[in-house]
Amino acid sequence: MTTLVFGHKNPDTDSTGSPIIWAWYLNQIKSVEAKPVLLGEPNTEALFVLDHWDLEKPEIMTDLAADTPVVIVDTNNPGELPDNINDADIRGIIDHHRLVAGLETRGPIEINIEPLACTATIMYKMIGDDLAQAPRGIKGAMLSCILSDTLEFRSPTTTQEDTAIAHALAEDLGVDISAFAAEMFAAKSDVSAFSEPELLRMDSKEFDLDGTGLRVSVLETTSPAPLLARKDALMAAMPGVAKEDGAAQVLLFIVDILKEEATLLVPNDMVKQIAENSFGASVASDTVVLPGIMSRKKQIIPNLKL
Amino acid sequence: MTTLVFGHKNPDTDSTGSPIIWAWYLNQIKSVEAKPVLLGEPNTEALFVLDHWDLEKPEIMTDLAADTPVVIVDTNNPGELPDNINDADIRGIIDHHRLVAGLETRGPIEINIEPLACTATIMYKMIGDDLAQAPRGIKGAMLSCILSDTLEFRSPTTTQEDTAIAHALAEDLGVDISAFAAEMFAAKSDVSAFSEPELLRMDSKEFDLDGTGLRVSVLETTSPAPLLARKDALMAAMPGVAKEDGAAQVLLFIVDILKEEATLLVPNDMVKQIAENSFGASVASDTVVLPGIMSRKKQIIPNLKL
Repeated sequence: MTTLVFGHKNPDTDSTGSPIIWAWYLNQIKSVEAKPVLLGEPNTEALFVLDHWDLEKPEIMTDLAADTPVVIVDTNNPGELPDNINDADIRGIIDHHRLVAGLETRGPIEINIEPLACTATIMYKMIGDDLAQAPRGIKGAMLSCILSDTLEFRSPTTTQEDTAIAHALAEDLGVDISAFAAEMFAAKSDVSAFSEPELLRMDSKEFDLDGTGLRVSVLETTSPAPLLARKDALMAAMPGVAKEDGAAQVLLFIVDILKEEATLLVPNDMVKQIAENSFGASVASDTVVLPGIMSRKKQIIPNLKL
Repeated sequence: MTTLVFGHKNPDTDSTGSPIIWAWYLNQIKSVEAKPVLLGEPNTEALFVLDHWDLEKPEIMTDLAADTPVVIVDTNNPGELPDNINDADIRGIIDHHRLVAGLETRGPIEINIEPLACTATIMYKMIGDDLAQAPRGIKGAMLSCILSDTLEFRSPTTTQEDTAIAHALAEDLGVDISAFAAEMFAAKSDVSAFSEPELLRMDSKEFDLDGTGLRVSVLETTSPAPLLARKDALMAAMPGVAKEDGAAQVLLFIVDILKEEATLLVPNDMVKQIAENSFGASVASDTVVLPGIMSRKKQIIPNLKL
């Protein structure tokens, strides 16, 4: 049976590119028949990356049949995976997020979680010398994933390994990192086609804060102005999205990649209090700028206080 | 704060030796202050191994203070760890068992789980060339862990990597594998000092089979006769142990390492039915011999049927 390789729901560049990279490795190097699939429509940056490197867009998987062999990448959180994930035959997990209780495997499998910025960085290390056999598109996907997850090395999640590996890939491919990253971020910033609920769910993680369910959403952009121009509509859409998703509140952080700061929308007193208690911010309007805040994983989630 | 490195409760050789190996690595190679500890008294084989390689017996930890930095080895099952394990600051997990939902980490950490026979084999690979700096006792502990978990390569959990690494270590150390393994197994087989309840819990894992809690106990030995001579007392102790541990039944498999077979004690109709349904055995008395059965992980647990 073909092994399916997939990342999380609402796929970003890493959750789109890493399944392609790993399926290539399984097929070509390990002689394991494998296919990358997606758990939803990729974001605009990921679509740009697929197009740029001439990679076929993976199928979007709607049903996961029981007992299907799968490799999970870029998450280990059952909430970001198909509901019946534990009925699948999980063969491997490659990830760079904190361990969240929930996944179970039938036997001992290969699990590789490392505190690096990007799944593709871990894969680069795991693939080793065999990467010499990879076509340009696979190496390009790797580079793209790293630039995306590190925000071109600006994010505090960036490690020396991520940076060194991205530079090695860029040199091998003859890519100008700054110019290419700028194109990627421009693609990610083009979110005019999306509705407010879609924007609130585009890059979002559920987080339980002392029993209060929060949907912590981030929009990374090089041009925050068009998003901030829609702030009233975004805030108006929050209660509906929160209710549908079983959360108490949506927090939306608009991350300005170039200025290296986040703007948090403040629709009500609860969010005002969270902003003040979590980031020491003084909130005077319905937005607050948080200088230096770029990473949900490193800077937002660990600091959240009600 | 000193990082504590420990394996599972009821420590066997791998859960005694691997913490010592990893604490050495953290202290000497990674400059991280670390200390191996035990979650109970090691079994007789592990005590022999400590003595043979002149290794200090690690302290037995009674309380795990919140926020203590820890590295967990040879298990990822919260049921085999301190009750408050998720209040610790889990820094790493190195294991070779199936993933069991339950552990949570605060941030992304290094998790390395591989389908090899032994934790020490994974450590050998992770430590790499730095192992050249290890004293004889550390290499000896590694070899001992592999011989113990593979039953000198007889267990079906054994992989080519386990075998190759054990042979490399033995050559480096100038150890005759067969002679040394025989000494280890003789030590493991000397269980005359233990009470029946202690024997039933010595190497035991809780397993939920369709809602029925089973305590699946294994005693690996080169001399099954003294154990079989105590079978009436062992069966008499089962209901009390099961009740205390919240299980419906204790299954005791006495594994004859040399004959490569297991004898299952059959105290009642429930176990008779499990033996018949799980292993196709025909049970005519209060014991049944299961030829070729040596591994709980590979052969017993996956086949259990009520």
